[in-house]
Amino acid sequence: MNALPKRVAVLGASGYAGQELCERIEAHPGLQLTAAMSAREGVVPDEPALPVDRPLEPLDWKRIAGLDAVLLATPHGASAPLAARALELGAKVVDLSADYRFGDVARYERVYGVEHPHPELVEEAVYGLVEFERDRIAGARLVAAPGCYPTSVVLALRPLIEAQLIELSAPIVADCKSGASGAGKRPSAALHFGSVQDNFRAYNVGQHRHAPEIETYAGASGARVVFVPHLLPCFRGILSTIYVQPKPGASVSEARAAWERAYRGEAFVKVFERGQPELSRVVRTNQCHLAIADGRAFPGAEVDAAGEAVTWVLTSAIDNLLKGAAGQALQCLNLMLGFEEAEGLR
Amino acid sequence: MNALPKRVAVLGASGYAGQELCERIEAHPGLQLTAAMSAREGVVPDEPALPVDRPLEPLDWKRIAGLDAVLLATPHGASAPLAARALELGAKVVDLSADYRFGDVARYERVYGVEHPHPELVEEAVYGLVEFERDRIAGARLVAAPGCYPTSVVLALRPLIEAQLIELSAPIVADCKSGASGAGKRPSAALHFGSVQDNFRAYNVGQHRHAPEIETYAGASGARVVFVPHLLPCFRGILSTIYVQPKPGASVSEARAAWERAYRGEAFVKVFERGQPELSRVVRTNQCHLAIADGRAFPGAEVDAAGEAVTWVLTSAIDNLLKGAAGQALQCLNLMLGFEEAEGLR
Amino acid sequence: MNALPKRVAVLGASGYAGQELCERIEAHPGLQLTAAMSAREGVVPDEPALPVDRPLEPLDWKRIAGLDAVLLATPHGASAPLAARALELGAKVVDLSADYRFGDVARYERVYGVEHPHPELVEEAVYGLVEFERDRIAGARLVAAPGCYPTSVVLALRPLIEAQLIELSAPIVADCKSGASGAGKRPSAALHFGSVQDNFRAYNVGQHRHAPEIETYAGASGARVVFVPHLLPCFRGILSTIYVQPKPGASVSEARAAWERAYRGEAFVKVFERGQPELSRVVRTNQCHLAIADGRAFPGAEVDAAGEAVTWVLTSAIDNLLKGAAGQALQCLNLMLGFEEAEGLR
Amino acid sequence: MNALPKRVAVLGASGYAGQELCERIEAHPGLQLTAAMSAREGVVPDEPALPVDRPLEPLDWKRIAGLDAVLLATPHGASAPLAARALELGAKVVDLSADYRFGDVARYERVYGVEHPHPELVEEAVYGLVEFERDRIAGARLVAAPGCYPTSVVLALRPLIEAQLIELSAPIVADCKSGASGAGKRPSAALHFGSVQDNFRAYNVGQHRHAPEIETYAGASGARVVFVPHLLPCFRGILSTIYVQPKPGASVSEARAAWERAYRGEAFVKVFERGQPELSRVVRTNQCHLAIADGRAFPGAEVDAAGEAVTWVLTSAIDNLLKGAAGQALQCLNLMLGFEEAEGLR
Repeated sequence: MNALPKRVAVLGASGYAGQELCERIEAHPGLQLTAAMSAREGVVPDEPALPVDRPLEPLDWKRIAGLDAVLLATPHGASAPLAARALELGAKVVDLSADYRFGDVARYERVYGVEHPHPELVEEAVYGLVEFERDRIAGARLVAAPGCYPTSVVLALRPLIEAQLIELSAPIVADCKSGASGAGKRPSAALHFGSVQDNFRAYNVGQHRHAPEIETYAGASGARVVFVPHLLPCFRGILSTIYVQPKPGASVSEARAAWERAYRGEAFVKVFERGQPELSRVVRTNQCHLAIADGRAFPGAEVDAAGEAVTWVLTSAIDNLLKGAAGQALQCLNLMLGFEEAEGLR
Repeated sequence: MNALPKRVAVLGASGYAGQELCERIEAHPGLQLTAAMSAREGVVPDEPALPVDRPLEPLDWKRIAGLDAVLLATPHGASAPLAARALELGAKVVDLSADYRFGDVARYERVYGVEHPHPELVEEAVYGLVEFERDRIAGARLVAAPGCYPTSVVLALRPLIEAQLIELSAPIVADCKSGASGAGKRPSAALHFGSVQDNFRAYNVGQHRHAPEIETYAGASGARVVFVPHLLPCFRGILSTIYVQPKPGASVSEARAAWERAYRGEAFVKVFERGQPELSRVVRTNQCHLAIADGRAFPGAEVDAAGEAVTWVLTSAIDNLLKGAAGQALQCLNLMLGFEEAEGLR
Repeated sequence: MNALPKRVAVLGASGYAGQELCERIEAHPGLQLTAAMSAREGVVPDEPALPVDRPLEPLDWKRIAGLDAVLLATPHGASAPLAARALELGAKVVDLSADYRFGDVARYERVYGVEHPHPELVEEAVYGLVEFERDRIAGARLVAAPGCYPTSVVLALRPLIEAQLIELSAPIVADCKSGASGAGKRPSAALHFGSVQDNFRAYNVGQHRHAPEIETYAGASGARVVFVPHLLPCFRGILSTIYVQPKPGASVSEARAAWERAYRGEAFVKVFERGQPELSRVVRTNQCHLAIADGRAFPGAEVDAAGEAVTWVLTSAIDNLLKGAAGQALQCLNLMLGFEEAEGLR
Repeated sequence: MNALPKRVAVLGASGYAGQELCERIEAHPGLQLTAAMSAREGVVPDEPALPVDRPLEPLDWKRIAGLDAVLLATPHGASAPLAARALELGAKVVDLSADYRFGDVARYERVYGVEHPHPELVEEAVYGLVEFERDRIAGARLVAAPGCYPTSVVLALRPLIEAQLIELSAPIVADCKSGASGAGKRPSAALHFGSVQDNFRAYNVGQHRHAPEIETYAGASGARVVFVPHLLPCFRGILSTIYVQPKPGASVSEARAAWERAYRGEAFVKVFERGQPELSRVVRTNQCHLAIADGRAFPGAEVDAAGEAVTWVLTSAIDNLLKGAAGQALQCLNLMLGFEEAEGLR
């Protein structure tokens, strides 16, 4: 690696995803973390906020000019104008927020309830689900990294829908469970230790804004998704249990084969022949683990249900902060800057 | 309370459910815990095994003769003959195992893969879901306490199925999450602290033997249930998220009204008007908390899905060791012995 | 129990200790929870804040007039004037804060760095460590419930110091570990789930204000205590490991005998013959578990250290919210109102 | 790095420390993991036991012949003969067990209660505390990696004792708290999830075999250590709180300066100017974080204690599986094989 390193800034560096980005960039042989900034000018916390040996700095556009890339680990609404400004200054941008995830401005505005300040960039932005958009990402100036839940669900669904193995007339159920880091770092009653430990609950039932994102990228228009996120009493990881109705005659082994075709050669997706994904095997990695099983395989079921349509149970596990956020963003950045896709992520 | 206390023994007293039973019986003003026994003769652990101030004793039938009741916190297979023997000795029996849950011997044998040693008692036994079998329980000699997962799922489903609000031609999805105490106290690699903490996974996907129990008691023959249990990184509690297709025209408020009718006056079932059940509010209680929501209520859903069938999301939370085991068993015992149903459970 | 129940209010009812108080009072056959109030007028949270079936109310002195007792689960500084006002209105008061714990106003002001607004009440107040102040508590109008750490440490130290078994010329080390509930319910970065889970640290090393409280009540003037609290990744409980130098010739069995004399007949202190206290056996109880061991009993130690002074290791476990706060306060209130001391605490 | 990689085997690869070793070796640019073996011939578990993409193999000496190094993550007693055999086959050996930690065979035999099978190797072996034995480790054939607790305690104590800042006539108290991974992977009632979560306790009070190891390497003969380990409800990390009596006139800043001199230029020891170490900042690193404070700095202490000897509170945090086991072993191996000491550990 004799070339000069590419110079990169992280905005929103003190959040969980921002911290992951800083750590991974520091460990990346081809990248130099030039600045780890807050999303706001003039405001930085007193405490050491970064896992790397540098201070969190306030937002300073002068220091961003001339950089190769900017990574935005900032909230939706805040990201859109930051991305526009960074692009003007010549940097490539990966935005981890939802601001550029929908190609359709009207859909974004309906889902997020705000006017999009830069509709002219919406069309240009590429959805950063690398396994399906590799070439477009490599050529992009602006990439919108997918949401954590959509990453875990879409990686499971899309090959099966594209292979026409799933009945889209029935709703798809995505019952998703996330560690508390997915809810962010800002102190609140809901995220107090006493509220999360020894507890478990669903939230935003049927109303979470990742549902339309999942439907958009599930692999076919018309897929209807019932999405229910839950908060686990642990820090990292998402496990999604997804219930789909197969087309008549389709088998679990055909579905597994469709996954294997879709993910042959992929560094970060593993299809299980047997056994079940679990969080402990994906956290602190950029991996997605997938498994499929018949939903009514218990003794006695075959007697009662002969000839009836079965339900498949797909399980998908990722680290929400890596494959669901910082890892996937870095996978995109590697492609955009000409690095090997897995650099810094093994 | 001037009457003499009823004399009760717990068999299998050193397991998690057995320990709960001992604690609750000790605190019950009308019961006397006469013996807390292992399920085996001559075998007791060295260590203090009980949360109450008495030793665990080996199984001793002489000490059981003449008791008013025996509670069996013993595994399936072991319970069936213990129940028969205790009945012979004149005690009433509540069995927390699966051995007498299915009125149909053939179904039990298919699901559990063993021959039933006492088919003559199967028909006599009453399924101890108090809210639906109160009168039969009060008159029973032998009650089979429901499984933990079936309790949480059936309490949610049954009033809606009986009110004919749910489309039974579509499969019902029960995505259930349990604390580790549900898997018992025996040391194993899977239940080692390092395997459970910071982890989450599905197990027995589509194959768990609680699925046929749920189908049997869901409220109508022909209900097909896809049941997937998961292991939470906490100790107590079950939260079930249940996905059902309503009959055309049925509304969430009708469903909530059906619950309220079914559970009016019940001490241990609470229907939420708003908000979501969570484990922390039910653990260490005998309560079941229920909520219902529309599964596709996110912004934009109405545009895409106008006129289509929706999915309802039912959430049901219990303590697996109380309403899912020892608490419900004691609720039954109270009825069988003539106590107020909630005695010792408030 | 034919007498009318005593009417009681809790101020600061929405905090962890306040919630425990409300639950225990509701379950107490001789008490009626007349009001569960915030410490401030006109301010209450939207959310259900109490574990009992009643709303949190704003502070309202009119509703306090005429009550039998007021329990203050309010912070130091806030408690002192609330106690004074409640006493004026004729109620007996148990204050869970530090405001009335030091008989010496100057010492309080030096430790807490504020001027005491009611020095006239300081002398009247009784320190509510029941096992040592039972008679004075029974006759008191105003009781200061001990701090959580001091309760666990003083119960271990005091009988040994009073029996003159401990060398006071050497410092006493109290290495204490508390669950996160001890730090309260207010959201903060330090108490965010992500900061506490999978973590452990000392805090306020050598500077915690419970150190002078421990020294004051340890059993003799001149005891010097090095006190270091730590934050455990769990919710409830304090385990204190206390290192003392015995007087020449004193033995571990003499020390254990001193504890047994001191705590004979006590409902809430248990001295271990063998084995070690652990949090799981004291949480959700009002118990204190005590054990003592020789600090250099490892193989080889006897060879190297023959004839040298040993160190004793005392371990003491309580539930910080019960014996360390609400439970002990209720123990005091029972005495003040003429109830059996353990009522509502078994 | 053009040279051929050094070929290394791990014995005892399926335990927690063995797994860490495998992961780190796979990521090390100069090492090749040639074999990951069980400690026994012919016995391997069915399940995937390794975090790396290779199977666990049974012990096979033919495959060990000719290797550059063998790492023993095997229990004490088992390691001693394995080390001897591997040395005979020409490999360098790092043993993570206690078998070669004591230069004095008699002391080993007294502490571990077994006869040492290879006393001839005991003298040759070097204690692998790199910061104090760097040169001898670099030239060694056989290195005994220090115990986890001794690493955390000795790194804190030794510079202060060597600088003669600590009064050795007073006992040193080492109150140590470890995550459950320190107790190993074998299923047992004590390590069941239900026994560790929400719990905390001391164990082996005054009797743990790491106490004589600490005394041996503390920095001076005659240091007497009272060592009490505790089990934390989390997986990784040790935090040791150490209480020492300074020599008259010695100051906290002198002590900190002694640490800074001892650890200047060290990659893996960090001395805090202010703030406290915490597990979350050292886990998954090879770092040791150290801080020191005055033990009686609370308001009021100065008044009471003027002129009296103070106590210092040293806090030391490491990851028990890295700096306390696999990381430190790899640090040693790097020196023995001519690599940069921190290779594979950053």
